[in-house]
Amino acid sequence: MKKQLLDLQEYLAQNNLDIAYISNPSDINYFTGFYSDPVERILALLVFPDKDPFLFAPQLEVEAAKDAGWDKDVFGYLDHEKPFELMAGHIKDVAGTPTKWGIEKDDLPVQKLEAIKGQFPDAQFPTNLSRYMENAKLIKTAAEINELKAAGTEADYAFEVGFNAIKEGRTEQEVVAEIEYAMMRKGVMHMSFDTIVQAGANAANPHGGPEKNPIEKNELVLFDLGTVHNGYISDASRTVAFGKPDAKSLDIYKVDLEAQYAAMDAAKPGITAAELDKVARDIITKAGYGEYFIHRLGHGMGTSEHEFPSIMEGNDMVLKPGMCFSIEPGIYIPNVAGVRIEDCVYITEDGCEPFTHTNKELKYID
Amino acid sequence: MKKQLLDLQEYLAQNNLDIAYISNPSDINYFTGFYSDPVERILALLVFPDKDPFLFAPQLEVEAAKDAGWDKDVFGYLDHEKPFELMAGHIKDVAGTPTKWGIEKDDLPVQKLEAIKGQFPDAQFPTNLSRYMENAKLIKTAAEINELKAAGTEADYAFEVGFNAIKEGRTEQEVVAEIEYAMMRKGVMHMSFDTIVQAGANAANPHGGPEKNPIEKNELVLFDLGTVHNGYISDASRTVAFGKPDAKSLDIYKVDLEAQYAAMDAAKPGITAAELDKVARDIITKAGYGEYFIHRLGHGMGTSEHEFPSIMEGNDMVLKPGMCFSIEPGIYIPNVAGVRIEDCVYITEDGCEPFTHTNKELKYID
Repeated sequence: MKKQLLDLQEYLAQNNLDIAYISNPSDINYFTGFYSDPVERILALLVFPDKDPFLFAPQLEVEAAKDAGWDKDVFGYLDHEKPFELMAGHIKDVAGTPTKWGIEKDDLPVQKLEAIKGQFPDAQFPTNLSRYMENAKLIKTAAEINELKAAGTEADYAFEVGFNAIKEGRTEQEVVAEIEYAMMRKGVMHMSFDTIVQAGANAANPHGGPEKNPIEKNELVLFDLGTVHNGYISDASRTVAFGKPDAKSLDIYKVDLEAQYAAMDAAKPGITAAELDKVARDIITKAGYGEYFIHRLGHGMGTSEHEFPSIMEGNDMVLKPGMCFSIEPGIYIPNVAGVRIEDCVYITEDGCEPFTHTNKELKYID
Repeated sequence: MKKQLLDLQEYLAQNNLDIAYISNPSDINYFTGFYSDPVERILALLVFPDKDPFLFAPQLEVEAAKDAGWDKDVFGYLDHEKPFELMAGHIKDVAGTPTKWGIEKDDLPVQKLEAIKGQFPDAQFPTNLSRYMENAKLIKTAAEINELKAAGTEADYAFEVGFNAIKEGRTEQEVVAEIEYAMMRKGVMHMSFDTIVQAGANAANPHGGPEKNPIEKNELVLFDLGTVHNGYISDASRTVAFGKPDAKSLDIYKVDLEAQYAAMDAAKPGITAAELDKVARDIITKAGYGEYFIHRLGHGMGTSEHEFPSIMEGNDMVLKPGMCFSIEPGIYIPNVAGVRIEDCVYITEDGCEPFTHTNKELKYID
């Protein structure tokens, strides 16, 4: 059995839990090698301290789970069947009537908890396994770091395509189309999130998207993109100059890059997440742009961009080798321009290494 | 205030609920016109029976919510702040200490429920608003049906691109690339799900995806795709012949098409969802392929493909004008071939009308 599963079994035994109900698709993938988002259907991995685990899945997914290499039981159900009643039967066959349940409280909807309670009226839910999963995934193995590097290389290629696609009259959306088309033709079928290309003042809205407006000359153009490689993601941002942007735009680029370099230098074992955030934030604040850096410095990443550690004020987690996260200071001046420069990195014995290597000195495109 | 919000306020008053906590992004969009998936951040719409509603959102999203037309309060929070504490302050300012909460139990994670309980220890959660939302969205307005028609027209165009893209030696993934590139160049930036192109035996795995294998001659090729148009989706499937497929493949196509036509004919006010499923299933079963039709006949759709009504055994909901759902019988013979033919439709006064119009007689591509 995979080490990940053995570790979870040991955790259950040590914490007197009778059963783990794993429902986050990314976590099911972590344990089984099988990824599927079942949306409103039910997909769950049931793990016991001293019995074999099994998957419970829509009948449609049963073969795919086996094909993905899952060699323990997988029980399917049809759309018109009652999944929790069926699942309860399988659980009772394997493990009697478990009382102490570990569930992923960050993900499991209240309605599904109530459905479990309907089948197991004496069940207790003392443990939020979301915390266990965050810690289990926190330190990446060498094999995982290799996957993340491969995803980073794909992102570097995507930047190259994107920079070459900037032409007067082209819209942000058309540049996105060129990037994603080139990636799909290389067999990269999943971007890790909707590709962002934002020019000029549009880039000042860091959660906005690409628009149908033509990109104009003498603006900054912000790219934020990533791919999925064997379940591991890349996520990186670059901002380039199309023509000759105004002095204000150039100044925020300079400051943001200084902050990004400083944080890259400071990222090493021993510093806390909050301290690292402060390294970049202080530079931006001193330059007078503090109020325009409206998000944390970075987020953990691996199989998704929503892992630990979160690089932000208040997080006193000490960084350790194998942790992976983004370093992405941003300065967004409404109605003027936006800059974000981002690499995801992994912590080494004495520093950090980025997964993406696209040059960060301001690139001018004519 | 929008009728949707007034209706919810009335529902709250009638059911003695003090507050509704709306957290499903698609439902927030339904009430506010603002769509955002906040992932692990917090985005919630708070609605009260007799006070103005407000949005609580990541600071990053505040401007976007206003730009989308939300003209009530929107309160932001920063990454390092404690969102539930802040949100509780705003709730108390508006409505004192609400006791009876309506929450969307199908979506709200257990951890967020516990965070609400942490701020409001006396809170009770008697009502699952997911059921309210399903019913609120069940009957589409004329304006919504127009959006769904526009999305259907986009899907028809995508089929045209996809059929033209089939060429000997091209892979399924390359055909997907051509489709999505053409759509993005038209400004359709979001497919409603990952485009599926599956040829030959690969199509027998209805939850599989496009592969890197070249499409071979004399196979059936299955397309399943859709777009997002102003927040409303399309979703349709067609199966075409590349060259001359074998007799078995042609036979399952004929049977599946007969089932699809029969269900289209039978879909009208008065029939139940289960009866409609049976119309198609009986034809497939009589032809000897019943065991290969391994999913429900259809799913409700509108702003997502996961709405009511579910067209399946056991669902005795009577169909009414304005309901929208897919009719998608499928026959999947492992290691041989797969066929699915799907239109989404809306129920009219005396029948149904599809949103997609791509011909369903078997198309031969040389």
